[in-house]
Amino acid sequence: MQAEIITIGDEILIGQIVDTNSAFIGKEFNKVGISIYQITSIQDEKSHILQALKEAEANADIIIITGGLGPTKDDITKHTICEYFNDTLVEDKAVLKHVEQIFSKFSSSPLLEVNKQQALVPSKAHVLKNYNGTAPGMWLEKNGKVFVSLPGVPYEMKALITEQVIPKLREQFKFPFIMHKTILTYGRGESALAEHISKWEEDLPHFIKLAYLPSLGRVRLRLSGKSSDKKLLETEINNQINLLLPQIEDIFVGFEDEASIEALIGNKLSQEGKTLAIAESCTGGRIAQSFTAIAGASNYFKGSVVTYATSSKVKVLNVPQVVIDKHSVVSKEVAEAMANNVRELFNTDYAISTTGNAGPSKGDSDAEVGTVWIGIATKDEVFSEVFNFGTLREKVIGRATSKAFEMLLKEI
Amino acid sequence: MQAEIITIGDEILIGQIVDTNSAFIGKEFNKVGISIYQITSIQDEKSHILQALKEAEANADIIIITGGLGPTKDDITKHTICEYFNDTLVEDKAVLKHVEQIFSKFSSSPLLEVNKQQALVPSKAHVLKNYNGTAPGMWLEKNGKVFVSLPGVPYEMKALITEQVIPKLREQFKFPFIMHKTILTYGRGESALAEHISKWEEDLPHFIKLAYLPSLGRVRLRLSGKSSDKKLLETEINNQINLLLPQIEDIFVGFEDEASIEALIGNKLSQEGKTLAIAESCTGGRIAQSFTAIAGASNYFKGSVVTYATSSKVKVLNVPQVVIDKHSVVSKEVAEAMANNVRELFNTDYAISTTGNAGPSKGDSDAEVGTVWIGIATKDEVFSEVFNFGTLREKVIGRATSKAFEMLLKEI
Repeated sequence: MQAEIITIGDEILIGQIVDTNSAFIGKEFNKVGISIYQITSIQDEKSHILQALKEAEANADIIIITGGLGPTKDDITKHTICEYFNDTLVEDKAVLKHVEQIFSKFSSSPLLEVNKQQALVPSKAHVLKNYNGTAPGMWLEKNGKVFVSLPGVPYEMKALITEQVIPKLREQFKFPFIMHKTILTYGRGESALAEHISKWEEDLPHFIKLAYLPSLGRVRLRLSGKSSDKKLLETEINNQINLLLPQIEDIFVGFEDEASIEALIGNKLSQEGKTLAIAESCTGGRIAQSFTAIAGASNYFKGSVVTYATSSKVKVLNVPQVVIDKHSVVSKEVAEAMANNVRELFNTDYAISTTGNAGPSKGDSDAEVGTVWIGIATKDEVFSEVFNFGTLREKVIGRATSKAFEMLLKEI
Repeated sequence: MQAEIITIGDEILIGQIVDTNSAFIGKEFNKVGISIYQITSIQDEKSHILQALKEAEANADIIIITGGLGPTKDDITKHTICEYFNDTLVEDKAVLKHVEQIFSKFSSSPLLEVNKQQALVPSKAHVLKNYNGTAPGMWLEKNGKVFVSLPGVPYEMKALITEQVIPKLREQFKFPFIMHKTILTYGRGESALAEHISKWEEDLPHFIKLAYLPSLGRVRLRLSGKSSDKKLLETEINNQINLLLPQIEDIFVGFEDEASIEALIGNKLSQEGKTLAIAESCTGGRIAQSFTAIAGASNYFKGSVVTYATSSKVKVLNVPQVVIDKHSVVSKEVAEAMANNVRELFNTDYAISTTGNAGPSKGDSDAEVGTVWIGIATKDEVFSEVFNFGTLREKVIGRATSKAFEMLLKEI
């Protein structure tokens, strides 16, 4: 049983927004055993929506449509779906009441005719109540296939998917079991790793698939399987991992099922009751932000500083001006002073520091664009390494962040 | 003339990564007059890739394929494209040399047979040299249609698109002119705004399309047009904007063409020679990171602190313990002390502060999850506002960040 996701909205096609909705739906569906066959992003245009619905109906059993349900004229999804189902729109009393309540409670704007029209739904639709907004979700069926139309606002869509769509799908269908297990490795290239484990890869059972996911200095290995026999699948994937681990001992850093490397670090620090502070220069807050995006960060993360200007390294972090003058602001000495001093400032067990030049032009130092010193301080020692991450700003910030995680994870 | 983007990789369909490549390509193509008809994300699976290529060939003139070009066994794009074109793979000497150079220069791993295979390309392909990686881009043509296969690694793909694919497309075809102009408004809901400007919207010429893009407290209005007559289009879009602006004077904050609101703020501060510091609690570095992601941030951004733990608000930012005890850590008094003190610490013209509870559980305060105080300090004054952004962590952090930008933009 397969699903297709159709996301509707010119803003995706012209690159004004990134489609994060599909990734969320893909992940949640996989957890309950529904594979995604295809994701299709199309314009707010009637004939194209009709064509996409038809193609999806041919390829998939469950079709999830997001976007185009707003109250304004460019939102045409509802009318088009109605046409696809040869249906007419009728007013849903419960939705109308909900819209009225939202406006009386939260809105400073008056309730308008267009807002009331949010209560119009195809007569054949089962309405999914949207507790976080005015546009309801709509569930329709045709020839044994399920079509669900959802608003495109991410948090409205997410709540509808987890609280209503998935439970209702599981009531109606029986799904196989899908399992992914992702192994995080650092420090060896994709092809060298593949060569090294080729014998193991060849011997994988046919229902387990291996994928290599290289990015910014690390390679993730994802094992995926699908089976109606949950126990068999779990046993076999775990067996294969037990065969693999001794072969990659030197580069293995952990499993990433739900978790990113920053979550792994956070969990480990929390469990051990250790704390972390960060001093960032060229990474500009990205490292702190990666940790604090995850709930529970306050268990180990005390705080951080971004000392972007050279003067603030001196004033806020007490990096001696003479050290900067002698070694330049992008140097081992400054990175280590930043790590030491931020650890003391926030009184933590560990600290990370970055100082470098993310480009595009040179800053307060003669260091080449892309040069980054990363420092790690503990209660007993401080050390640092230097890297060159190339000339693309986005890549420099991303790789420096990733490398800092790697260095800290090795230390804790 | 229209393009379709096909992204290949199970990691997109299972939600392991978000497809940011398509948004980038959509944006860059739009700038030079190429519309994206559809974005299709599919599995690393031969028959599905063949089907997608066939459908794209029927719908579009330019087909951009990303992903699946790595050296490992799960990467099957190249062989499948070869099959689609009834072609065979041949070794490209220049690519082989490039791969050898990359390995001798940057890699600690030995050059393996699989790496050398990166130099195999379809005999009919024009090779696009990938200066940032080992997998070359490939340009093929069939029945007047262009197919371009690119690696999925974002920075490799981006350089190939801007430096090689777009210039070559512009050599070969003449594209119409596409113009988008996006107006940023704050403080009025989508439907109330639509009602207010409905007369203006009705009178728009047929070749100009209006879209409403509501998100987290703001509505963006996007005018889009396409024409072979660049001057006519520019004149008409600007005319329409001049008609609109007087009607939305009270909620208009700026234009967002390339720029996000943080870029608008950054430009304004840079032009006026003013500086900014930030003290974040619940937003955890997100505000600083949004500014520093944009090149040129060092012109106005001096630095920031994330005082996540209550103790670090006292120690690092000198917020008096007695103020915290009396008013709680999530309070007007603490937000304003943070803004004042971080402004003084970094010696800047402006400062932003946030203190709140992003959830999921309550922190060092009795404040409800979702409560956030945002403070703004200037050389002359300090003020703050309180908000409740709901119970979803991601939404609280995102809306607090967005609201902080809005408050600062009004002030500068």
